[in-house]
Amino acid sequence: MTDTQNEADNRGLAIDRVGIRGLRHPVVVRGPASGAPPRHAVATYAMAVDLPANLKGTHMSRFVEALHECGGTLDLADPTPLPRRLLEVLPAHRAFVSTSFTYFIEKSAPATGRQGWLDHEVRLEIEVDRSGQSSVLAVLDIPVATLCPCSKAISDRGAHNQRGVVSFHVRPCGPLDLAGWISLIEQSASCELYSLLKRPDEKLVTERAFDNPVFVEDLVRNAATRASARDDIGWFRIEAENFESIHNHSAWAVIERQVR
Amino acid sequence: MTDTQNEADNRGLAIDRVGIRGLRHPVVVRGPASGAPPRHAVATYAMAVDLPANLKGTHMSRFVEALHECGGTLDLADPTPLPRRLLEVLPAHRAFVSTSFTYFIEKSAPATGRQGWLDHEVRLEIEVDRSGQSSVLAVLDIPVATLCPCSKAISDRGAHNQRGVVSFHVRPCGPLDLAGWISLIEQSASCELYSLLKRPDEKLVTERAFDNPVFVEDLVRNAATRASARDDIGWFRIEAENFESIHNHSAWAVIERQVR
Amino acid sequence: MTDTQNEADNRGLAIDRVGIRGLRHPVVVRGPASGAPPRHAVATYAMAVDLPANLKGTHMSRFVEALHECGGTLDLADPTPLPRRLLEVLPAHRAFVSTSFTYFIEKSAPATGRQGWLDHEVRLEIEVDRSGQSSVLAVLDIPVATLCPCSKAISDRGAHNQRGVVSFHVRPCGPLDLAGWISLIEQSASCELYSLLKRPDEKLVTERAFDNPVFVEDLVRNAATRASARDDIGWFRIEAENFESIHNHSAWAVIERQVR
Amino acid sequence: MTDTQNEADNRGLAIDRVGIRGLRHPVVVRGPASGAPPRHAVATYAMAVDLPANLKGTHMSRFVEALHECGGTLDLADPTPLPRRLLEVLPAHRAFVSTSFTYFIEKSAPATGRQGWLDHEVRLEIEVDRSGQSSVLAVLDIPVATLCPCSKAISDRGAHNQRGVVSFHVRPCGPLDLAGWISLIEQSASCELYSLLKRPDEKLVTERAFDNPVFVEDLVRNAATRASARDDIGWFRIEAENFESIHNHSAWAVIERQVR
Repeated sequence: MTDTQNEADNRGLAIDRVGIRGLRHPVVVRGPASGAPPRHAVATYAMAVDLPANLKGTHMSRFVEALHECGGTLDLADPTPLPRRLLEVLPAHRAFVSTSFTYFIEKSAPATGRQGWLDHEVRLEIEVDRSGQSSVLAVLDIPVATLCPCSKAISDRGAHNQRGVVSFHVRPCGPLDLAGWISLIEQSASCELYSLLKRPDEKLVTERAFDNPVFVEDLVRNAATRASARDDIGWFRIEAENFESIHNHSAWAVIERQVR
Repeated sequence: MTDTQNEADNRGLAIDRVGIRGLRHPVVVRGPASGAPPRHAVATYAMAVDLPANLKGTHMSRFVEALHECGGTLDLADPTPLPRRLLEVLPAHRAFVSTSFTYFIEKSAPATGRQGWLDHEVRLEIEVDRSGQSSVLAVLDIPVATLCPCSKAISDRGAHNQRGVVSFHVRPCGPLDLAGWISLIEQSASCELYSLLKRPDEKLVTERAFDNPVFVEDLVRNAATRASARDDIGWFRIEAENFESIHNHSAWAVIERQVR
Repeated sequence: MTDTQNEADNRGLAIDRVGIRGLRHPVVVRGPASGAPPRHAVATYAMAVDLPANLKGTHMSRFVEALHECGGTLDLADPTPLPRRLLEVLPAHRAFVSTSFTYFIEKSAPATGRQGWLDHEVRLEIEVDRSGQSSVLAVLDIPVATLCPCSKAISDRGAHNQRGVVSFHVRPCGPLDLAGWISLIEQSASCELYSLLKRPDEKLVTERAFDNPVFVEDLVRNAATRASARDDIGWFRIEAENFESIHNHSAWAVIERQVR
Repeated sequence: MTDTQNEADNRGLAIDRVGIRGLRHPVVVRGPASGAPPRHAVATYAMAVDLPANLKGTHMSRFVEALHECGGTLDLADPTPLPRRLLEVLPAHRAFVSTSFTYFIEKSAPATGRQGWLDHEVRLEIEVDRSGQSSVLAVLDIPVATLCPCSKAISDRGAHNQRGVVSFHVRPCGPLDLAGWISLIEQSASCELYSLLKRPDEKLVTERAFDNPVFVEDLVRNAATRASARDDIGWFRIEAENFESIHNHSAWAVIERQVR
């Protein structure tokens, strides 16, 4: 049977990335600590390798085979097995994997202690090369509440507030402490969110937000200060978006820093 | 050249709707009053007809031709020319057109009077049959602000508030008064939204929302009361969603009524 | 502490549905047969009840509590425990639950037998009332391949083909046989899809699609014929959309029938 | 009235970008040549400036005011007036504007010459600084058809084909020749798309695609070769995604090059 992909190509153009995208697969997320409870999720994968100039095509089915071999588990202490497997089965110098999934944090309501789950979208991008070098980028979307300092200062009563989301991009030094990074962002906002709040909790979060107004500028500065103080973050980009309750558009701010 | 679509079908199954979907086309929205300024938009169209049991297929290209003939203009006083044209060019009993577009309202900031535009997503579904009967469904997505009465009542200071959106489904008796229907919904919320607010405006809308707290239940009841009092609405469905600033999920309420 | 929701309302308007929407929660899908392997997923929930005219508001936190009590498991043989629980904790006549999740089918490549997973989006809408009556609507989005009969008939070589998706709405009589319903739709298309195909498999599916051309009209008629022959379907709506490879819009057809 | 934004900040952190996002506004796209017909669209804007470390906040309303002053027209020969206006009204070193809109190309069916429109999503990102330097990034999403060379080679009849989309990122040297860049990508695929095709046209495009099979790798290499030969492109990133008709996931390839 003809193997078209293996034919020679004479256009003289190497391809930076070629592979598949939008493949959904069940996954169990483990770690980063050995005792952390496993989390079941449905992940969306992109996978790619580079392609030398002399080859006409890659072998798309091998990406899916590699995922079946490695993809049932994602270890937050070391997410590189899948891209390393790609380099074993494909003639490439670099392999790239992106996996996106919903990650839940169990949290207690602040007054009553009632338990609930809060969902976060997480994307991990992992790249490895034949020399053994690897790099990881983690992107966490963390929902928060913000209350406007200007609105509070100029108004006789009340202050507009709203839900926002912070996209926290991290290049880590070590294991992926998703829960710690989520907490860091939540502490930088007017108040964190909860799935379950009884009335005493609602009173508490209303007053906490009112006592702690933050502009979108304050949110990214607060978070950048905290991120810079951690020793497990080498680089970060903090992108905050407030779904303004007085407008039909968002306020938006970005800080990006190389820390170490 | 073979005409596969015109071949006979022997499965004995008429098709309720067949046509195309997801076609984008420039449009000028006119009316409903003769002096209303025309609005340019980019609309997404679905178009369909029924297909008798004995025919194998419809003629897809005729939908696009009919749109080119009629689709450059959408008249809010009479949106039926396009589905009526479909009945002229296709052997069907009923024709259906759905068109979705962004509709802007120019509004003045409440204290300074500064001008701005506010965007609304609108979908019109128009159905006509060979007997000349027609029906129209208009769906308007209207963004608003809501402030929680419970949070205000139980808290010593502040109150959580947020952006919400009301999907207002209307079966009209007469021309499509989009601007009037949008205003009706805005008056039923804690405060309406603006694209441009200076500080005196921000103070005013903050206090107005604080003085006018509404649950999602109040929002749909307020709007239902107003909608029932108009003589250009025969049936409505009011669906309100608040993007709660204390949760990562929405509060949601629906009232549906036949009025006349 | 004030209980604003429990105050009286005098607008005389009962609310059809009030509750929460967009809440994400982990779920284990079980059944419908007792030996079926459990499937882990992340579900998005909407939950609502009706509200009598004399009450100002519902109690939003009870929806989340009920989900925590019941929501860890979804049983395809009986998905009613969660809405029934809502009627125990809220003063309502009817309760509504919608849950959406990704559902995987394990399938073997047609020539090599290689194993892979295929993902489907599923939404279940369950309504119960105080008299014990319940109704279920299942909506399955099933991806398929279609090859155009007209293109094949008029062209000297080749035929345009594309991915499509069938939204299969089912009101069931009995347990939810998701796998059986998915298979029914796949058999009605030009070819089913796979996540993993080696070259002998790709040859087979290419030729199978070419030998089995279907218009979007054929697809819904084929599926309607099969759905009518099953005794576990009381009503169906089959909505097919082909992402035409020659256009930037879709072909689209709908058949809806009450069967028994 | 208190001006909270103008207060001093002592965290010592400059902000890379702060402004607004998700604002929709009507726009008339003109040029790039003086005789080109104007195109009406609805654009989604993001606008931002940098913020010095010593200032607490930016002035969000000035972005909207600047858009009202400049935003009614977008000139493809020079899209910098809006970000330059931002530097006049805000105390910043750099200003950033992103605008996304639907752009139509009128094209003739290949056999019958029937006229139709094809829609493309376009995003322009424009950055200027106080020294007068400016940079532009244009991103065009161009839908195409691809037919698989492997499937054609190994099958006795037919070949799987599908719609794909190429995201063409361009850093231009000069005016924005959107129509020329779209044509470049279309010529690199198996066949271009049309909104209106009669049967003689459908025969022609079916056979053209069958005679011109391209992998996703071929598509990006063909396009990269053409892009490198133009003198109005300084850098490009070509990202192609095929919505495979045999899978429920996409094939995907990327080439990025600095040309001059």
